[in-house]
Amino acid sequence: MMSFFQKDIKAVFSSKKFPALRSPILICGFPGSGFVGKLAIDHVINELEGIKLADIYSTSFPPQVVIKNTGIVELMKNILYYVKNTAGSHDLLFLTGDAQPVSSKVEYLLGEEIIKIAKNLDVKQIITLGAYITGMFVESPRIFGVATDNDGLELLNSYNVLKIDNGSISGMNGILLGIGKINNLKGISLLGETSGYVIDANASKYILKKLLAIIGVSIDMEDLDKKAKETIMLIKSIEQRIGDKNPSNEDVEQMVQKKQPEIGYIS
Amino acid sequence: MMSFFQKDIKAVFSSKKFPALRSPILICGFPGSGFVGKLAIDHVINELEGIKLADIYSTSFPPQVVIKNTGIVELMKNILYYVKNTAGSHDLLFLTGDAQPVSSKVEYLLGEEIIKIAKNLDVKQIITLGAYITGMFVESPRIFGVATDNDGLELLNSYNVLKIDNGSISGMNGILLGIGKINNLKGISLLGETSGYVIDANASKYILKKLLAIIGVSIDMEDLDKKAKETIMLIKSIEQRIGDKNPSNEDVEQMVQKKQPEIGYIS
Amino acid sequence: MMSFFQKDIKAVFSSKKFPALRSPILICGFPGSGFVGKLAIDHVINELEGIKLADIYSTSFPPQVVIKNTGIVELMKNILYYVKNTAGSHDLLFLTGDAQPVSSKVEYLLGEEIIKIAKNLDVKQIITLGAYITGMFVESPRIFGVATDNDGLELLNSYNVLKIDNGSISGMNGILLGIGKINNLKGISLLGETSGYVIDANASKYILKKLLAIIGVSIDMEDLDKKAKETIMLIKSIEQRIGDKNPSNEDVEQMVQKKQPEIGYIS
Amino acid sequence: MMSFFQKDIKAVFSSKKFPALRSPILICGFPGSGFVGKLAIDHVINELEGIKLADIYSTSFPPQVVIKNTGIVELMKNILYYVKNTAGSHDLLFLTGDAQPVSSKVEYLLGEEIIKIAKNLDVKQIITLGAYITGMFVESPRIFGVATDNDGLELLNSYNVLKIDNGSISGMNGILLGIGKINNLKGISLLGETSGYVIDANASKYILKKLLAIIGVSIDMEDLDKKAKETIMLIKSIEQRIGDKNPSNEDVEQMVQKKQPEIGYIS
Repeated sequence: MMSFFQKDIKAVFSSKKFPALRSPILICGFPGSGFVGKLAIDHVINELEGIKLADIYSTSFPPQVVIKNTGIVELMKNILYYVKNTAGSHDLLFLTGDAQPVSSKVEYLLGEEIIKIAKNLDVKQIITLGAYITGMFVESPRIFGVATDNDGLELLNSYNVLKIDNGSISGMNGILLGIGKINNLKGISLLGETSGYVIDANASKYILKKLLAIIGVSIDMEDLDKKAKETIMLIKSIEQRIGDKNPSNEDVEQMVQKKQPEIGYIS
Repeated sequence: MMSFFQKDIKAVFSSKKFPALRSPILICGFPGSGFVGKLAIDHVINELEGIKLADIYSTSFPPQVVIKNTGIVELMKNILYYVKNTAGSHDLLFLTGDAQPVSSKVEYLLGEEIIKIAKNLDVKQIITLGAYITGMFVESPRIFGVATDNDGLELLNSYNVLKIDNGSISGMNGILLGIGKINNLKGISLLGETSGYVIDANASKYILKKLLAIIGVSIDMEDLDKKAKETIMLIKSIEQRIGDKNPSNEDVEQMVQKKQPEIGYIS
Repeated sequence: MMSFFQKDIKAVFSSKKFPALRSPILICGFPGSGFVGKLAIDHVINELEGIKLADIYSTSFPPQVVIKNTGIVELMKNILYYVKNTAGSHDLLFLTGDAQPVSSKVEYLLGEEIIKIAKNLDVKQIITLGAYITGMFVESPRIFGVATDNDGLELLNSYNVLKIDNGSISGMNGILLGIGKINNLKGISLLGETSGYVIDANASKYILKKLLAIIGVSIDMEDLDKKAKETIMLIKSIEQRIGDKNPSNEDVEQMVQKKQPEIGYIS
Repeated sequence: MMSFFQKDIKAVFSSKKFPALRSPILICGFPGSGFVGKLAIDHVINELEGIKLADIYSTSFPPQVVIKNTGIVELMKNILYYVKNTAGSHDLLFLTGDAQPVSSKVEYLLGEEIIKIAKNLDVKQIITLGAYITGMFVESPRIFGVATDNDGLELLNSYNVLKIDNGSISGMNGILLGIGKINNLKGISLLGETSGYVIDANASKYILKKLLAIIGVSIDMEDLDKKAKETIMLIKSIEQRIGDKNPSNEDVEQMVQKKQPEIGYIS
């Protein structure tokens, strides 16, 4: 039995041969505030029937197993999928996972590992999907964006993505752009406006629509539309109880706990 | 004097020769919420007179010495015991300890080290014992379970263990199943319902009875029965004072502090 | 693609040849309480038109990209600049950055790396710029100082810098002096009195004036003067509302939040 | 310039030759709750005019410089001193320092390094000095103790040191006993009763008197007696204001802050 975890990161490829992809776009979404990026990427991977390229394990993921809805457990991991996009000139590569690294150092190393794989697959462009937290409930969330270079800023502008001019982007959404940049990969990040209080499938829907416009791909949106409507209903019911569109944190958190039942904690 | 701790984990075997065990089942319980798994495994090791196989030291355990009831101190460690189960077809291997790792990375490495030892001893099946926290006091705690595979789910079902279909299991109870699985070891986890507020020997008793049924072993339960009754009395006295079966966290925590005197803190 | 981050710290020099500097003084300021050191060093680098010597990346910086005011993102880093100070006998070396290390260990290693570069450039003297937090608002902040040796104490005394005789200095301002000292580099730290509640350009102005006196350099102060006046106005408006020059933490923090609008949080 | 900190721990010996010591006793005291062990060991080192054996630097100490009362700064470190105890059969080795490790792993490695040095110097016995926190003010603090073995327990008993039979000892006071034990070094820990609210020179005095009795050494106690009286006066003045010998944490902490003025915080 060889050690799997001495090296901090272990990518297990589904096949010994890399697929031949045409200058793919790497699209990334992770669990984070409001699950905005995660719900969006899960939907598009599902609709496009992404093929698994690799499981990525790491000692930097929380030391936990995830319980699947079958009752089966698995170590936390990230997963790379690819999709042959015959209608367009770029194939697609998707990166998502159960968690982001807990170790700051290994977050850099994981970013570097992903960029290495991306470069081997001839990726030239990265798009990360995240959340822009405002503390306010909105029905039509705005989409904000940043880029690694001026071409990216122009691209964002041409799709009416709003500009941000200060602050920072933490986690894999940021680190992949930054490490990509020092390795000559261009990237943009699309950030969906969200309150920060609830799982926000509505923000996910808006961000995914923007992504699909940019990459020129159409998919069925029904499942995500349905979840987005549930988010809007949840928000409305919270607002009715609170009676204020810009409530205090404590008020909202109390309401959210009543509306979103917690699961049992296991140790 | 050689360095003991440069390698993060150091297993000190009691004998140079491994015992010959017949495809043993590895059973694990650690200090954690309510000490549910810990009290259960300590009782069964004691009743079956487990023989020590190895002490496992690690820089990932809290940098402390444990004070034994003799007043003697020892470095924190994990311990492996074995029991020749002549009545059944599987010998038994028990893993417990003073603490779980504080480092996320070394938790993966310790899991891997344990699985390596388990495979060398021809273990094919792992059972971990933990807690399922509900925030409610109950007299007849339910037993929940998860598995690494469908055989495990069927096994749990045939013993009326309740299914869980979301969430995650953190700590050694989870990591051993997950790392076992990628090394082709099957595993299940038995999780005893507990409030999360008190040391819960009653949940330990229920979980141990389920474990004994599954592995087909009988032991004297008197000591644990007695402790379980004390837990029930403690819970009842808290409930009488609080006057509510589903109290707020603050109410219960205040009561619990009055009933379970703290020990002196040493630094 | 070579690994950039396996080594924790990666200095990327702007040129293969080191500039020939005449026994330069290394001057350091980092983001910290009140941004006292950071605003001061940014102003002097800008006015003296510092030339970039190196970008320093590290896994010990927060795993984030910084959003520049153009909307372009970059990995967090430290930067070394130099200035040929033809009017004086010492050239100048400036160290600043987006962040200080989050890992205690790598903070030592980064300090050591900086000192190594400094020694290669024939640095003999270090000056670090920081904040001395008092919890009180003042219009004419005092300047405190410490030194690695008696010559430094005399220097501070001759410029009327106040002495500190207990406590500790954490972060790069401290570690650079300490590691410099065990490598035979002399150093002093100048610490500007600040409340700890607001970004304090006024303290920055006072500390920078003291630095310029010590190193015998004159620069235009207009930009920093303007910011200092804004700080004083902010403080006055907070004091008027609070009505007390030594208010409770909660009072001030509430006021400060109203006066300094927060930016959106991104993840 | 060689790297000093790549190895986590760096001992700098004052002389290339180890002193010839007669089976010395290693006595350890560190900054911790109430500074009980630290004040005691500083007093005895001072009175016996301990000779410095080594400075020990480590990346596991907080990344800070300590400001000495001269205004001079130094990197945080631990220090070993020795004393030739011609009146007795054992020479003395003292270990103290500015801080204990912040990294759990390096705390094990530092413990191991100290034990290695101790064994090279023919140490057979370790005594660590710490605090036993009770949350109550007392004028005649009790001394508790633990040992690595039965000989140690008998020794403690013969000096009327009270026994502890559960809990744990964290930090260097514990780890040195634990790592000593697996390297065949006997050890005891003496723990002085203290409230946990104030710097307690009175507990230090009681613990030092017990230590001196055990090792058969007499020293002038005047300086520590004076500080002990100041502690008693501080405690009495707090008690008068609070009016209760077993007050709530908040009451005492408020009082203590008024009585023990804080120093300026530097960053």
